[in-house]
Amino acid sequence: GFEEFVKTAEGAKILFAEKGGEGFAAIKPGKKITAVIGPEGGWEASELDLAQKHKFQIITLGGRILRAETAAITITAMIQNHFGDLS
Amino acid sequence: GFEEFVKTAEGAKILFAEKGGEGFAAIKPGKKITAVIGPEGGWEASELDLAQKHKFQIITLGGRILRAETAAITITAMIQNHFGDLS
Repeated sequence: GFEEFVKTAEGAKILFAEKGGEGFAAIKPGKKITAVIGPEGGWEASELDLAQKHKFQIITLGGRILRAETAAITITAMIQNHFGDLS
Repeated sequence: GFEEFVKTAEGAKILFAEKGGEGFAAIKPGKKITAVIGPEGGWEASELDLAQKHKFQIITLGGRILRAETAAITITAMIQNHFGDLS
């Protein structure tokens, strides 16, 4: 389940949320990055609490709400662009 | 067709190709950006010539070859991230 996942995640741990987080520039990448996006309808407060308890950093992309299908590719592109070889 | 499209495109005109172009940082955005990605199998040399003739700038993303479905979202994300409100 979600708790097991956030407990065992490795590297820089980032959770994208539609509000309340820091900007993308706040990400400090390690060699590994674990990035998670929310489900349709967004995160439960209890999930955000659990993620933060396990050192996930909450990141918010300027108020845009993306479809789940698009969000995964969008965020992968941004991470590869800033920290990987997509540039 | 493609010629009519490249002839009438507006704003900063960018064509993404899998090789031979400049890096993403070379893009100088205007208020409008027209960005085009290639089809499965890549561009014909004649299409690249036609695009350049009509002032398209060729951009290559570090040797990565993306699926067409992924490329459109990836490039939209990068453009919104660098020049728009996705950050």
